Amino acid sequence: MKLIRFGEAGKEKPGIEHENKWLDCSTFGEDWSETFFENEGLKRLDNWLKKNLDLLPEINKATRLGPPIQRPSKIICVGLNYSLHAKESGMEVPEVPILFMKATSSISGPNDPIIIPRNSEKTDWEVELAVIIGKKASYVSKADAMNYVAGYCLHNDVSERDFQLNHGGQWVKGKSADNFAPLGPYLVTKDEISNPHNLKLWLSVNGEMLQNSVTSDLVFDIPTLVSYISQYMSLLPGDIISTGTPSGVGLGLKPPRYLKPGDVVELGIEGLGQAKQVAENAK
Amino acid sequence: MKLIRFGEAGKEKPGIEHENKWLDCSTFGEDWSETFFENEGLKRLDNWLKKNLDLLPEINKATRLGPPIQRPSKIICVGLNYSLHAKESGMEVPEVPILFMKATSSISGPNDPIIIPRNSEKTDWEVELAVIIGKKASYVSKADAMNYVAGYCLHNDVSERDFQLNHGGQWVKGKSADNFAPLGPYLVTKDEISNPHNLKLWLSVNGEMLQNSVTSDLVFDIPTLVSYISQYMSLLPGDIISTGTPSGVGLGLKPPRYLKPGDVVELGIEGLGQAKQVAENAK
Repeated sequence: MKLIRFGEAGKEKPGIEHENKWLDCSTFGEDWSETFFENEGLKRLDNWLKKNLDLLPEINKATRLGPPIQRPSKIICVGLNYSLHAKESGMEVPEVPILFMKATSSISGPNDPIIIPRNSEKTDWEVELAVIIGKKASYVSKADAMNYVAGYCLHNDVSERDFQLNHGGQWVKGKSADNFAPLGPYLVTKDEISNPHNLKLWLSVNGEMLQNSVTSDLVFDIPTLVSYISQYMSLLPGDIISTGTPSGVGLGLKPPRYLKPGDVVELGIEGLGQAKQVAENAK
Repeated sequence: MKLIRFGEAGKEKPGIEHENKWLDCSTFGEDWSETFFENEGLKRLDNWLKKNLDLLPEINKATRLGPPIQRPSKIICVGLNYSLHAKESGMEVPEVPILFMKATSSISGPNDPIIIPRNSEKTDWEVELAVIIGKKASYVSKADAMNYVAGYCLHNDVSERDFQLNHGGQWVKGKSADNFAPLGPYLVTKDEISNPHNLKLWLSVNGEMLQNSVTSDLVFDIPTLVSYISQYMSLLPGDIISTGTPSGVGLGLKPPRYLKPGDVVELGIEGLGQAKQVAENAK
């Protein structure tokens, strides 16, 4: 299944993409939330669709898409998880996963604007494969880890490099501004992706391809990340693990290059759809 | 007002502490959540109590207290915000607030056990004044910042020092285990604390006083923190800013000292109540 959420920001309704159509699932009676995932929502939805698919209203594709899941408890990001990106950032390939958090208030729809924060001169892009957790994971083994994954979605881990690296201490300052986490277009359930470790991912700015890689280059794979993170904290249903970005971010270009108002960012991952975000200044 | 939540973990009901009694506010019909704060809940509750106070069932004080607010969108912590603590940590007093995040899945009740994570040898304590945000704050000025504060509560920012400092990268690994954020006993609304910058705070382990300071020693005060953080991200209603810990943590003792199963941690802040947490090993 491909889960979507559509409508006005903060008032999104749940739906699915099916055979290239967007269908309204409001009558299912639940949003795609922590509670939904926690209570076997994906199985229940799948069963419900067998009876109700033909009855679902079609949504006009001019409708805004929201993030494909309701705001989760956390976004855990993995730093420097592609070796060429570590190199372009002037850092070593890490021996263990580097984790940081992004405020969930930064989540936005896949085609919402990227908002350049006030006083920002270094707003940058990062295409990433995001993993959505399906059930509470605490101290899970690598062998068992995939049982805790609900699915995947496209994520742009938008980052302000000066805030991240030069404003004292931890990275969270450069990762958490509003609209710094465009998610979607959809959550693709795990069963639809035969190998999440062999997906092309790419990002262009104003039509120029700048990131172009494949998830087989991940330093730490998905089972390793789920298991590793679950040793440090509980992952809750709906939680997001963003698995890191390949090379080609603005920070790594020579000379470095950052987003200006009007810049058009397009990105995609094989099987997980595409998104398009136009940069604008914060009010 | 003093807001409490009581009952089984994950199924807490809302209440208040009034004249030293715990009163059940379930009939108010709302939990102390983001939605509650966002919709002028404190004002509405205050009005409702004028008519309903005498009708509220009293709760037996043997009942478990939960965290005094429903799980918020984020906990932003401030590092090294007391100069003696920076010194004992072997770090400089920062020129700007050091921010880091703690997973909200770590929130627990004020008297719940501190769970020592698997493979932990350095689980440490940190008494802190936590500020609860009352309405969405984005780019707010220092002069206006206190208008965005709902109230305060006691917080133990439990920390695993080895995970925090020696496991690669960011602090979040040592801050986010289950039960690493005991909150409460209650949220005290802003009107009841005439000066939040002159409150004694203390923490003892097995009866030995180890932290004993006053919030007048904060390097960055509350309006500065609210304003500063709101330049980097939106603070949502119910969000928690934990303002940092004074000296006397286990890491700073000579020799350092960390929690063992059975250790009894007691802590308090003037006007914000006390809490008692017994350490135990993770299962």
